Amino acid sequence: MSEKTIQVNLSPERKPKPESNQLGFGKIFTDHMFVMDYTEGKGWHDPRVVPYQPLTLDPASMIFHYGQTVFEGLKAYLTNDNRILLFRPERNMQRLNRSNDRLCIPNIDEELALEALKKLILVDKEWIPTAEGTSLYIRPFIIATEPFLGVHASNSYQFIIILSPVGSYYKEGIQPVKILVESDYVRAVAGGTGEAKTAGNYASSLKAQEVASQKEYSQVLWLDGLEKKYIEEVGSMNVFFKIDGEVVTPALNGSILEGVTRNSVIHLLKHWGVPVSERKISMQEVYDAYKAGKLEEAFGTGTAAVISPVGEFFWKDEKLVINEGKTGEISKRLYQTITGIQNGTEQDPFDWVVEVHQEAVAK
Amino acid sequence: MSEKTIQVNLSPERKPKPESNQLGFGKIFTDHMFVMDYTEGKGWHDPRVVPYQPLTLDPASMIFHYGQTVFEGLKAYLTNDNRILLFRPERNMQRLNRSNDRLCIPNIDEELALEALKKLILVDKEWIPTAEGTSLYIRPFIIATEPFLGVHASNSYQFIIILSPVGSYYKEGIQPVKILVESDYVRAVAGGTGEAKTAGNYASSLKAQEVASQKEYSQVLWLDGLEKKYIEEVGSMNVFFKIDGEVVTPALNGSILEGVTRNSVIHLLKHWGVPVSERKISMQEVYDAYKAGKLEEAFGTGTAAVISPVGEFFWKDEKLVINEGKTGEISKRLYQTITGIQNGTEQDPFDWVVEVHQEAVAK
Ligand SMILES: Cc1ncc(COP(=O)(O)O)c(C=O)c1O
Ligand SMILES: Cc1ncc(COP(=O)(O)O)c(C=O)c1O
Repeated sequence: MSEKTIQVNLSPERKPKPESNQLGFGKIFTDHMFVMDYTEGKGWHDPRVVPYQPLTLDPASMIFHYGQTVFEGLKAYLTNDNRILLFRPERNMQRLNRSNDRLCIPNIDEELALEALKKLILVDKEWIPTAEGTSLYIRPFIIATEPFLGVHASNSYQFIIILSPVGSYYKEGIQPVKILVESDYVRAVAGGTGEAKTAGNYASSLKAQEVASQKEYSQVLWLDGLEKKYIEEVGSMNVFFKIDGEVVTPALNGSILEGVTRNSVIHLLKHWGVPVSERKISMQEVYDAYKAGKLEEAFGTGTAAVISPVGEFFWKDEKLVINEGKTGEISKRLYQTITGIQNGTEQDPFDWVVEVHQEAVAK
Repeated sequence: MSEKTIQVNLSPERKPKPESNQLGFGKIFTDHMFVMDYTEGKGWHDPRVVPYQPLTLDPASMIFHYGQTVFEGLKAYLTNDNRILLFRPERNMQRLNRSNDRLCIPNIDEELALEALKKLILVDKEWIPTAEGTSLYIRPFIIATEPFLGVHASNSYQFIIILSPVGSYYKEGIQPVKILVESDYVRAVAGGTGEAKTAGNYASSLKAQEVASQKEYSQVLWLDGLEKKYIEEVGSMNVFFKIDGEVVTPALNGSILEGVTRNSVIHLLKHWGVPVSERKISMQEVYDAYKAGKLEEAFGTGTAAVISPVGEFFWKDEKLVINEGKTGEISKRLYQTITGIQNGTEQDPFDWVVEVHQEAVAK
């Protein structure tokens, strides 16, 4: 038996499954998890599906002190004819390895990780919720486990995948959000870790998020850390603006995350013949377009909400109400098309979905 | 019995203690640890000294995903007449709470934390090494424990203190280090988390550290994230330059850590009548001073090494060899005075040391 064979150790007990209409986000976990260890000299080894269980870690483990960790987020969807679909999962594994590079974590075998993901999903397939808009959220993550109090790259790691059935993001139909443009706190700067999906980026965002919530804004829009002029991204979404017929999104600049949804949106817009450009865009430009009546739509893109229309930005004591606070046409079309491809009701012109076949993985 | 009474649960087993000359840094831990829990609505509760043991955490615990965590580092010293001394520990607890504020973690009771620290040290006092230059390193840290996959402040935390006997930083006498001035990667920027002692700052530094090590430099000197001109700090030390008779250190600017050693050095220099200023200082200024023969000394300050003289900076393909690569007079005097105060052989003019009294804590 190869070191790379995924062992499966089924849980003797099964937890009760929640009703599809009682699902929130990220609070309920399935019966199993995937674990694989890294040891210096040995590499990644012992990939296994095991009962969902607590991690037992020395209090000196480096994850608790120096934050050497990366993660991913994607979803599995159940189609009407009971097929299980993943949406461009290879991109998440590639991004995981890019994050690994930035955090000095040894690369994983992307194919093995994808196989592990599929195996785990099949073991827990009864957990994939069926109601419209629901899905199984997948969280792969890697943590540094060496018990050592010194700042250096760990010599041991764990790669773990956990699954959480999640409800529809929009229970009463797609709803525009209100967003605060952040002028004090900074999320990331070129040369930092903004491009990587690593814990510290999110920790540093909590304070700004707290301030925004107090003002009843659901998320913050980050500006660049150097001049606080150029638009970066929103909490856990990339951001797009439709200005005078053209869709604009900040170019990848080393400090924002390269979203899978962002990439898919750009592809679709081009496919539809909608002008789209990736470039530097300042908040002033957005403001000027707004004042000139040319800011037609704004929306965020990310795995959780797919498309999240922005109804209002708050910047320098002024409210910018977009499209009368209603969901725009492009936002709607993108949402319907992408969710349709994801759950198998729309055609998939770019071969984005990957089916999880029972047989292919079982052997 | 009050919720605030520190319970003590002694370990039935004791680990063998290492020889004083076999101590490294941060690899060996004592027989006990301190733990206290935070639950929303209940606050911090159940402070307790327990046997050193693994943490058991749900894999969805927020520490593994969003890096909401802070830590501290200080030391306990044994004097020749067997007294146990701490060096300005109240400053570490104050800084822990400043870090908590930035990371949206509920404040701890600083007095209780200090009492906990003392109690834990007394329980494990046999672990304080006695050889010259050795000490007991103390690592308080707080981690977010709520099992939830969403970016918000956790509703539960653990505050933990672990202890590690550590060897002398300079086994063969104080040795100057070689430092690479970092021009690509950025550690922190104003508005970010640089001022807080939080895991993500260290995670983001690993890559630059790796590059420096390959070039045989032991640490990196960070420049500001905006213009990459102004000096910030070194790995886990603040930095000082003696230029033409004046000692200069970067002012606290929101992106560097306020070191306890830094503050002590400034105090001592003023006390001695050595001119010292906290201000913005560019790498170009240091370079120009070097070229003019006026860069007399450079040194880092931090709990681990206390004073770490810099023998060489590498900047833009040029080596700046300082004081012929030898330890300077001010560095030497600061090192001797501070370590002397810490281990009780020098007078303590500012009441910096705090003695851990057996009786005071036992009741
Ligand atoms: C910071 C950040 N930006 C953007 C995104 C959107 O990326 P994706 O579309 O791959 O979910 C996410 C979520 O993953 C994120 O955390
Ligand atoms: C980033 C950083 N700067 C400076 C220091 C020095 O601080 P102190 O003198 O309190 O140890 C440390 C170590 O604690 C550190 O981690």
